[in-house]
Amino acid sequence: MNIAQLDALTGAISPVEGYLRRLLQEVSGNRDGTVADYIPELAKANPEDFAIAVATVDGAIYCAGNTDLPFTIQSVSKPFMFGYALQEHGLETVLKKVGVEPTGDTFNSIILDDVNNRPFNPMVNAGAIAMSELLRGNTPADQAAEQMAFLSRFAGRSLEMDEAVYRSESETGHRNRAIANSMLQKGMIKGPAEDVLDLYFRQCSILVSTRDMAVMAATLAAHGRNPLTKERVISPGNVRDVLSVMATCGMYDYAGQWMFDVGLPAKSGVSGGIIAVLPGQLGIAIYSPRLDSVGNSERGIEVCKRFTRDFSLHAYVDRTDTRSVVRRMYRGDEVKSNRVRSRREVDVLLEEGHRIVVIEAQGPLFFGTVERLIRQAAEFAEGRQAIILDLRRVAYADRAARLLLRQFVGELAERGCKLSFVEVIGNPNLAGLQEAFSEEVAAGKCTFVTDIDHALEAEEDALLAKHGLRYGDEKLSLSELELFQGIDRDDLATLETAILTFEFEAGQTILRAGEEARLIFIVARGSVSIHLGDSSVESRRIAAVGPGQSFGEMALLDGGRRSANAVADTPVLAYGFAVEEVRRLAKDRPQILEAMLANIVRSLSGRLRAANDQITALE
Amino acid sequence: MNIAQLDALTGAISPVEGYLRRLLQEVSGNRDGTVADYIPELAKANPEDFAIAVATVDGAIYCAGNTDLPFTIQSVSKPFMFGYALQEHGLETVLKKVGVEPTGDTFNSIILDDVNNRPFNPMVNAGAIAMSELLRGNTPADQAAEQMAFLSRFAGRSLEMDEAVYRSESETGHRNRAIANSMLQKGMIKGPAEDVLDLYFRQCSILVSTRDMAVMAATLAAHGRNPLTKERVISPGNVRDVLSVMATCGMYDYAGQWMFDVGLPAKSGVSGGIIAVLPGQLGIAIYSPRLDSVGNSERGIEVCKRFTRDFSLHAYVDRTDTRSVVRRMYRGDEVKSNRVRSRREVDVLLEEGHRIVVIEAQGPLFFGTVERLIRQAAEFAEGRQAIILDLRRVAYADRAARLLLRQFVGELAERGCKLSFVEVIGNPNLAGLQEAFSEEVAAGKCTFVTDIDHALEAEEDALLAKHGLRYGDEKLSLSELELFQGIDRDDLATLETAILTFEFEAGQTILRAGEEARLIFIVARGSVSIHLGDSSVESRRIAAVGPGQSFGEMALLDGGRRSANAVADTPVLAYGFAVEEVRRLAKDRPQILEAMLANIVRSLSGRLRAANDQITALE
Repeated sequence: MNIAQLDALTGAISPVEGYLRRLLQEVSGNRDGTVADYIPELAKANPEDFAIAVATVDGAIYCAGNTDLPFTIQSVSKPFMFGYALQEHGLETVLKKVGVEPTGDTFNSIILDDVNNRPFNPMVNAGAIAMSELLRGNTPADQAAEQMAFLSRFAGRSLEMDEAVYRSESETGHRNRAIANSMLQKGMIKGPAEDVLDLYFRQCSILVSTRDMAVMAATLAAHGRNPLTKERVISPGNVRDVLSVMATCGMYDYAGQWMFDVGLPAKSGVSGGIIAVLPGQLGIAIYSPRLDSVGNSERGIEVCKRFTRDFSLHAYVDRTDTRSVVRRMYRGDEVKSNRVRSRREVDVLLEEGHRIVVIEAQGPLFFGTVERLIRQAAEFAEGRQAIILDLRRVAYADRAARLLLRQFVGELAERGCKLSFVEVIGNPNLAGLQEAFSEEVAAGKCTFVTDIDHALEAEEDALLAKHGLRYGDEKLSLSELELFQGIDRDDLATLETAILTFEFEAGQTILRAGEEARLIFIVARGSVSIHLGDSSVESRRIAAVGPGQSFGEMALLDGGRRSANAVADTPVLAYGFAVEEVRRLAKDRPQILEAMLANIVRSLSGRLRAANDQITALE
Repeated sequence: MNIAQLDALTGAISPVEGYLRRLLQEVSGNRDGTVADYIPELAKANPEDFAIAVATVDGAIYCAGNTDLPFTIQSVSKPFMFGYALQEHGLETVLKKVGVEPTGDTFNSIILDDVNNRPFNPMVNAGAIAMSELLRGNTPADQAAEQMAFLSRFAGRSLEMDEAVYRSESETGHRNRAIANSMLQKGMIKGPAEDVLDLYFRQCSILVSTRDMAVMAATLAAHGRNPLTKERVISPGNVRDVLSVMATCGMYDYAGQWMFDVGLPAKSGVSGGIIAVLPGQLGIAIYSPRLDSVGNSERGIEVCKRFTRDFSLHAYVDRTDTRSVVRRMYRGDEVKSNRVRSRREVDVLLEEGHRIVVIEAQGPLFFGTVERLIRQAAEFAEGRQAIILDLRRVAYADRAARLLLRQFVGELAERGCKLSFVEVIGNPNLAGLQEAFSEEVAAGKCTFVTDIDHALEAEEDALLAKHGLRYGDEKLSLSELELFQGIDRDDLATLETAILTFEFEAGQTILRAGEEARLIFIVARGSVSIHLGDSSVESRRIAAVGPGQSFGEMALLDGGRRSANAVADTPVLAYGFAVEEVRRLAKDRPQILEAMLANIVRSLSGRLRAANDQITALE
C-alpha cells in the first residue's frame, strides 16, 4: 500500500504524517551499521525493522512504519530513571551519587570520577546502576515494581518486561558486574551488587514501542506532564535537569557533532531506539536496530538530522517571539467603559481619558516578553493616573514575570500611577498570580478587577471625581433629557402627565429580551445594566445607564419586543412612559413622536459610530 | 551613591537595571579565584573590577558597575571568529579545518584530532589559530584589519587593540607557538606559523568593554543582526552553528555542569570576561578578572547562575507557546463582510455562512504552532467551502511553516476547500511567503487577498452564487425598500414624484463627511462604499451598499451633516430624494416622515446589534 492509499484510507488531513511516511521510505535505503550482539538476544532483532513516531505536547501522535512493534528499551530508560531519582530524592542527594559531566569514554566504561567518588553521569551504565539503588521499596521485588510503574507513567500505559532479554542480560552482563563491583569497592553503591544489577538488567529489558517512546519524550517536552493521560510524572524543574544531562551526555561520544547537527536533548540505546525532545513542542522516537560505530542507530541519526533540518527544529533556531507580547495599547479617550455618561462626563473623558492606558498582553510572560512589556508601558506611564493590564490572553506568567511586574508596580506607585490587573481572578493560566501581589494590593499600589469594562469604569469614575463630577449628581429634568430634545414646553407639560414612577431592587430584572415592549424608562436614581442574551447566564454588558438616561426607547416602534435584558445594578428609581399613552398624545401633536424618533436616531447613530470606533480599535 | 539615588537620578522605570545593581553588590563579596598571570600584562588587572551588562535583541541595554571599562577580549573572540569563517567560507570548508567535538583537555592543549587531522573545536586555542588562517586579505596587515572590522561590527562600534598586551602575548606565547608549529607539521595550517600566530595574538588583544560584549552576545541572540546598528553581521544559520559549539565547548572543562546550572551557550576568556546568549531574548556579559581553577571568571559564573535561576532563563526551561497560535476562529454566519446584503442574501448567509471559516493566527509560525493551527483547522475543514487565514498578527513564518502550509493547501484542495491568505501582501514580516505558494495559486488551490473584508465578501459572493443569487439581480421597487416599509400606496405615489436620477463614475466621491446633507440616495445599479475619515487616505470600509439599498438617510435629521464619505466602487446609477421635498410632503402627511424615521431606527438598531456581535466576536 502506498502513501496516497493510506492517506485516502485514514482520511486525515495531516501534512506531518505524510512527511514522516515519505521520510521513512527514503531513509529505508540506509543499510549501514550492524545490529548489537553483545547480548545474544539483541542479535535476533530484524535489521530491517524501522518506525518513526512524533508526539506533540498536547497529545497528537504521528506515525510511520510499525510503531507498535515492541523492543527492549535499553539505555533510553536512563534519563527517565535519573528523573525518578531527582523526583524522589532531590538534586542534592542525587548529585552525591552521580555527576553531570560528559565522559570521553564509551557507555560501558569502567572509569569512574574518583575525585568526586561517583560515576561521571547518569547516561552511562555506571551512573544508571547508581540510580537503580535509589529506587524505593522494601524488597528488590518492590523496587522492580516501582521502576516498572514509573516508566509506565511516562508511556501512559502498563509496560511489561521481555523475560528472554532479561535472562540474556543477566547471564552475559559480565562487564556491568565488573562496573558494579568496582563501584561497591569504592563505596559508590552500598550493595549487594547482584540486587542493584538485577534492577538495572530488568530496567534495560522493559518492552516499549516506538509510539511509547515518542509519548515518553513528549512528556519531557510537556514539562513532565504526560500528554495522553495528563498526569504530572515529574516536575518542570526536574525535566530541565534531565534535558540538560541528555544534551551533554545522551549520545555517547557523538555529543558535540549531535549538538551541531541536531541540537536536541536526546538518548539512544543499543537495541536501536533513539528519542529526542524539543521542549514545548514534541518528542520524536525512532526504532531501527542497526548501530553505527559509536553505538547509535544509523537510521535513527539520519531521521533526526533530516527531520530537524527540514522543519528548523534545532534548539538554537530561535523561536522566541517577544515582539507580540503587547497585543494592543489604547487610552481611555479612545475606548470607554460601557457606562452611558452624561454630556459633561463625556466631555471630561474626551479631554482627560488619555490618563488611563489599557495594555493587552498576550502569549507567555517570561523575562524577554515582560521586559519588553514593561519598557513599552514605562514609555507611556509618564503623567498617567492608571494602567490597566489585561491578561486575558496570557498563556502563563513565570517566576521572572512576577518578579519584574512586582518591581514595576512599586516604581509606578512612586510616580502616582496605579496598575489594575484584569482577567486574572479565576483564570486557570494565572493561578497564584493575585496572591503574589498581596503586599502591593494591601498598600493600594495595584488592584485586581474582574473585567476590562469594570476596570475602565472605575478609573473613569476616579478621573471624573477629580473634576468634581460624582456619579448620580445629575438632576432629572425632562427638558434636559436627550430623548425630549426639540419638544416644546407645552408638549413636555402634556407628556409629564403620563409619567409613572417605578422602584426596583438591586439585581432585579427590569426588562427581559423577547417580552412585549410597552414602556420607555428614564433612570432617576441608581444604575441599570443592559445585557444581551440569556439573563441567567453571565453575559456581556453592552451598556450601563444612570440618572437622567433612558432605556427601552425601542418600544416606540410598532409591535416592538425587548431586544436585551435590563437589570438593576443598585436600588433604582425610574420614571416610565407607556408607549400607548405617547401615541395617544401624538395623534394631535405628531411633532412629539417625530422629535422622539429623531432623537433616538441621533442616539443610535452616535452609539453605532462609537461601536465602529471600538471595532477599529479592537482590530 | 546607592541604588535608590541612582534610580531617582536616571528617572528610569527599569526593574532589570535595579536587579542587576543589587546582584552586583551581592556578588562583590565573592573574592575567590586568582587573576591570570600566564601573560605578564594580564596580571596587572585590578581584581576588584566588576561589571555586568545585559543587552536585549531590540537594543535595550541594562548596566551595573563600570561597564565602559576596557579589557582585552581574549578567548571571548573565538565564537565570533568561528562565525567569520562560516560566513566567509561556508560550513564544508570550515569543517575541514576544525571539528566540533568537546575535548576533556585544557584550552591550550596541544593534543589534536589526528583521526580527522584538525583541532577538536574552534573554542580551544588550536582551533582558533586554524580559524585565523581563514581571514581574507592579501597581506597580514589586511587580514588583521579584516579581523578588527568584523569584531567591531558585532560590538556596533570601532574597536581598538591594546598594544602592551599584544606585545606581551607575542613575547611570551611559547605554548601557542608550540601548538601552531605542531599544526604546521601535521599540515593543519599552511603557515608561515608566525603570521597566523600574529593574527591570533592581535585577536586576543582587542579591547572591549562589558557593554560591548553584551551587544556582541545580543547580536547572536538576535539571529546575527546587531541590535544597535541593525546591521546583519552573520546569517541565522551560522548563528545556530556558533551557538551549538559554544554550548558544548565554550566553558572549557565545565561544559556538563554549566549546561546543568546555567544551560546557555557561553564563552569565557582568561582576562575575566564571560558572555552567555539566550536566543531570541538577550546577551549577558560579565567582567571580573579573578578566575577559578578551570579558567572561568569566579564572579562571572556566580552572576550567570543567579541571573538565570532568578529569571528562569535556562535553555531547557520551556518558553515555547504553541497554544495561542489561533487567536480566534469564526464562521461566515457569525461575522460578515461589510457589504450590505438584501434580506434574501442575509437569509442565505445565515443558513450557509458556516461554510466559510476565518482563522486568525498570531505570533511566530514554526513547526509546533503550524502543526497545531493545521490540526485545529482540519477539524473544522469538513464540509467547508473556504478557509480564510488572517496572518496580520504573525511575527514570522519559517521554513517548517511554509512546508506544512503548502501540504495543507493541497490536502484541502482535494477536499474541495480553498484557502485564502489575508494580510500577506506588503507585510514585511511575511516577505516571500506569497511567492512560495505560486504553484498552488496558479492551480487555483489558494489565493492571496489584501484584507479580511474583501476576502469575506468574495467567499460570500461565491456562496450566494451557488444559491442562484448574483450581485445586482435585485430589482428596484420603492415599496420593497426598507426605508419605505409601512408607507401606503398613495403616499408612495406622492414620494415617487420627488425622485431624481444620478449617475456616478467608478471612484467618484458621492458624499463627503462634513458636507451639508440634502439628499437621500437609493442605489439602482453598481456598488457604493462608505468610509470613515479622510477619503484621500486609505480608510476602513464600514459598509458597501448595492442595488435596492439606501445611504445618506441621516439627512432626514434637521441640520444634519454627512458623517462619512461615500465612494462609487463601480459605475453607479442612483435615485435621490431631496430632504426638503420629503419634509414638504410630510407637512400634510406626517405619517410619511414618521414611518421613514421608524425604519431608520430599525435599520440603525440592526446595525448596532451587528456591531455589538462583531465586538463580541473580536474580543
